[in-house]
Amino acid sequence: MAFEFRITRRVEFSETDMAGIMHYSNFFRFMESAEHGFYRSLGFSVSLAQHNPPLGFPRVHAECDFKRPLRFEDLVEVHLLVRAKSARSVSYSFRFRNLSATPIEEVARGKVTIVCVTQKTPGKMSAVPIPPEIAQLIEVAPPGLLA
Amino acid sequence: MAFEFRITRRVEFSETDMAGIMHYSNFFRFMESAEHGFYRSLGFSVSLAQHNPPLGFPRVHAECDFKRPLRFEDLVEVHLLVRAKSARSVSYSFRFRNLSATPIEEVARGKVTIVCVTQKTPGKMSAVPIPPEIAQLIEVAPPGLLA
Amino acid sequence: MAFEFRITRRVEFSETDMAGIMHYSNFFRFMESAEHGFYRSLGFSVSLAQHNPPLGFPRVHAECDFKRPLRFEDLVEVHLLVRAKSARSVSYSFRFRNLSATPIEEVARGKVTIVCVTQKTPGKMSAVPIPPEIAQLIEVAPPGLLA
Amino acid sequence: MAFEFRITRRVEFSETDMAGIMHYSNFFRFMESAEHGFYRSLGFSVSLAQHNPPLGFPRVHAECDFKRPLRFEDLVEVHLLVRAKSARSVSYSFRFRNLSATPIEEVARGKVTIVCVTQKTPGKMSAVPIPPEIAQLIEVAPPGLLA
Repeated sequence: MAFEFRITRRVEFSETDMAGIMHYSNFFRFMESAEHGFYRSLGFSVSLAQHNPPLGFPRVHAECDFKRPLRFEDLVEVHLLVRAKSARSVSYSFRFRNLSATPIEEVARGKVTIVCVTQKTPGKMSAVPIPPEIAQLIEVAPPGLLA
Repeated sequence: MAFEFRITRRVEFSETDMAGIMHYSNFFRFMESAEHGFYRSLGFSVSLAQHNPPLGFPRVHAECDFKRPLRFEDLVEVHLLVRAKSARSVSYSFRFRNLSATPIEEVARGKVTIVCVTQKTPGKMSAVPIPPEIAQLIEVAPPGLLA
Repeated sequence: MAFEFRITRRVEFSETDMAGIMHYSNFFRFMESAEHGFYRSLGFSVSLAQHNPPLGFPRVHAECDFKRPLRFEDLVEVHLLVRAKSARSVSYSFRFRNLSATPIEEVARGKVTIVCVTQKTPGKMSAVPIPPEIAQLIEVAPPGLLA
Repeated sequence: MAFEFRITRRVEFSETDMAGIMHYSNFFRFMESAEHGFYRSLGFSVSLAQHNPPLGFPRVHAECDFKRPLRFEDLVEVHLLVRAKSARSVSYSFRFRNLSATPIEEVARGKVTIVCVTQKTPGKMSAVPIPPEIAQLIEVAPPGLLA
């Protein structure tokens, strides 16, 4: 069981915009990368074909508070924490820290809620319980860490 | 003065992901496009070089609730509404409607708050009042529209 | 039958980079958008599910020569021309013109070759002939236009 | 002096498209990431502000041949080789290998040519010689490696 995961990545040129900072949409891409890395660390993938019927984990909510900009080549840590868990959904918190800043500083905080869905009829997604072999691997982080 | 703006766009192949739906980060790109179209409709640009000192409008908060997926070639309307306005910031609401669905359906709702900043020292942004010639063009939408 | 197609789009903020110009990878996204618009204009979609077995049109080659930069809010015309056609592939030329420049100027030229493929076994693509109902809609542009 | 550089990265969910494979525009982003990593390995950055006048390295040509698709979570090696060098430009070759395939297989080959430019007047780029302290760090790869 696990309640947190960290990835580190370097801001790429294609992720910056004409304001000279990382475009804000990329914070959401980074959160997803941390989430998928979390799943890999638990031994499974969000790959859609592995279950029958195939399962997916679309986002139903995502948000981010931006405190400071990230710039080209900054090294960023994305720290995922499991904030809440129900039969069909998981909520994550994310903290972005700029490891290239002196001192290291928090630059953003995000939240994402995903639901487990299946496609019973083509094009029509329905929420279903998270399979127990996955659900049992994910636990909510201690309240102190989420404060 | 204006309190709303609409853009319509078609979901592109490069905006889809392996789940067959538009990747969620693109909803945030679409919100920004509606915001910039709103500014153009008011006769100015977010282009950073036009003021002295140069101004920018970075996001300090962004969020989105996803209700239904968008798919390749879906025609989407993004409806921007001014939700709140202060001396240094503006908050927008966004409603995404899938015009290709029968009947037309709302697929997502988003919120973004931007602040007016300038770079007094290189790399250091400070919030400053929105210039009056811009602020006077933007008004808060009637409460009924925001409900 | 048709041998050309044009789309016009405005460079978005998220498509710029810290050099203040449109990031070069987006020229390739724009070429694809023109290609898909061309297919829509002919009455079909590259949507993968419509044939049995499902067909796709992946790129096997893409290139672009960049002459001048594009900037935020520039209005760009992407002009697609059919350069060559074989049983299993189509080659396109693309010309990018900046309609916001005075005078209007060509900013880039690209080429893309797509092949028609099917997935006989999962994960294994094989080139197959373009279905005749599609192939008959596409003709090679007159040599004078391609010069 | 150096004539090659390698990066390894994992294909992210946001980099896939509805065909279930990595979108082709991302191969161009990966080439740029390898190029910038090469520069960092030589002790400098493409950051635009470090010279007076500021220098940039825009692409004047980019191409890619796609042999096999990349899929979500595939581990990819991008191998940069210096193919040619002149006073004002450098040409790179790139080889993409899928390290997650058994056996490991080459999936694509690309080429990029960059020029050194400066902005003498705002908005107007001019090619200038690559500064000697940078040019002396970059050498052309042996012909055998480029074959």
